[in-house]
Amino acid sequence: MRMAELARVTGVPQATIKWYLREGLLPRGETTAPNQARYGPVHVHRLRLLRGLADVGGLTAADVRAIVGAIDDPERPMADVLAIAHGALSRGRGRDAAVSPDAVSAVDAFLAHRGWHVTPMSPARTELAAILATIATLEGVPTAQAGGGAQALLDPYADAVEQIAATEIAGLPAVVPRDVLVERVVVGTVLMERALGVLRRLAQEHHYQQEARA
Amino acid sequence: MRMAELARVTGVPQATIKWYLREGLLPRGETTAPNQARYGPVHVHRLRLLRGLADVGGLTAADVRAIVGAIDDPERPMADVLAIAHGALSRGRGRDAAVSPDAVSAVDAFLAHRGWHVTPMSPARTELAAILATIATLEGVPTAQAGGGAQALLDPYADAVEQIAATEIAGLPAVVPRDVLVERVVVGTVLMERALGVLRRLAQEHHYQQEARA
Repeated sequence: MRMAELARVTGVPQATIKWYLREGLLPRGETTAPNQARYGPVHVHRLRLLRGLADVGGLTAADVRAIVGAIDDPERPMADVLAIAHGALSRGRGRDAAVSPDAVSAVDAFLAHRGWHVTPMSPARTELAAILATIATLEGVPTAQAGGGAQALLDPYADAVEQIAATEIAGLPAVVPRDVLVERVVVGTVLMERALGVLRRLAQEHHYQQEARA
Repeated sequence: MRMAELARVTGVPQATIKWYLREGLLPRGETTAPNQARYGPVHVHRLRLLRGLADVGGLTAADVRAIVGAIDDPERPMADVLAIAHGALSRGRGRDAAVSPDAVSAVDAFLAHRGWHVTPMSPARTELAAILATIATLEGVPTAQAGGGAQALLDPYADAVEQIAATEIAGLPAVVPRDVLVERVVVGTVLMERALGVLRRLAQEHHYQQEARA
């Protein structure tokens, strides 16, 4: 198909498609004339991935670029791809904030209590420390006592996600091509984190109305 | 304390504090001289809330303003405050995207299956539709079949958050002052959604390493 049809099918404006082509996020089409190219299902799919990560996943252009770069690099280990997707989800949230040693210690103690092995550079670790520190300062207590203590505050949430994460990782198919698997990990990581938050809000709304009626 | 000390204690730059004062997000201090004011614990607390919602919660300035406005308005019903916090969490993610009627139907069917009663204008509903639609287009299937069907895809996540949300709503204290309760709802809604996502990533990292070792 021509670019105009690619734009129509995907709902992505032609100016945006041209930008993706220039930036190398979308592979070039097959050249059919000096100023004309033909696009196919690969391009449709890639545009949907790019827009899904940005519009629905809420990722920045730089993070979308990093993720797509990792998907396209067959040498990139899967753990790297997961780390890049995790980094994108942490972007701008407590990552660069000055997090006190107290808060980091509280997170370390919590991870030890859960038996979760996580690399020291994991951005999620810093983000969790920033969340605990914020709750503690709002409550006017030391970080270790945020919400009645990290274990009391976080265990109900950790119990809930522990089962999900174990199922997600164990459920990754072993016999699909790398690019399919990598994309599935990225989409699952990014979009299903959004879904998890959305579902909690929907359940909160439901239970709030139930309580109000009771 | 003087403004310089307020800046030091909270880590918020004086220019930002002045902006908050001008915008009415931070109450004025007690005037002690024509160009001088004294600030107290209320100001420290409010600055921490403002920065926590922005830096750790990842909310836009406009959403922080809407939330603080709702906290400060004693006439505002709690359901409104919850809706404003939920709206802020949906901001920029699938909310304004053109979501197909198919995707909305898939969400409606899923909510009916869960028995969750949610208002039609809930932004979470649209966001969930956008997530399902994105997954479906990437898989090249109709929205109703995203991830093997909304029930198969979402039920594990919904089971996990259902218990959390019920506990959260039931656990709201009944006998605290309104401003304390409202702030607790906002902070719990915003920061604990971030915490939920972060904990899932930490658990994923742990289980990924376990799998890789096995």
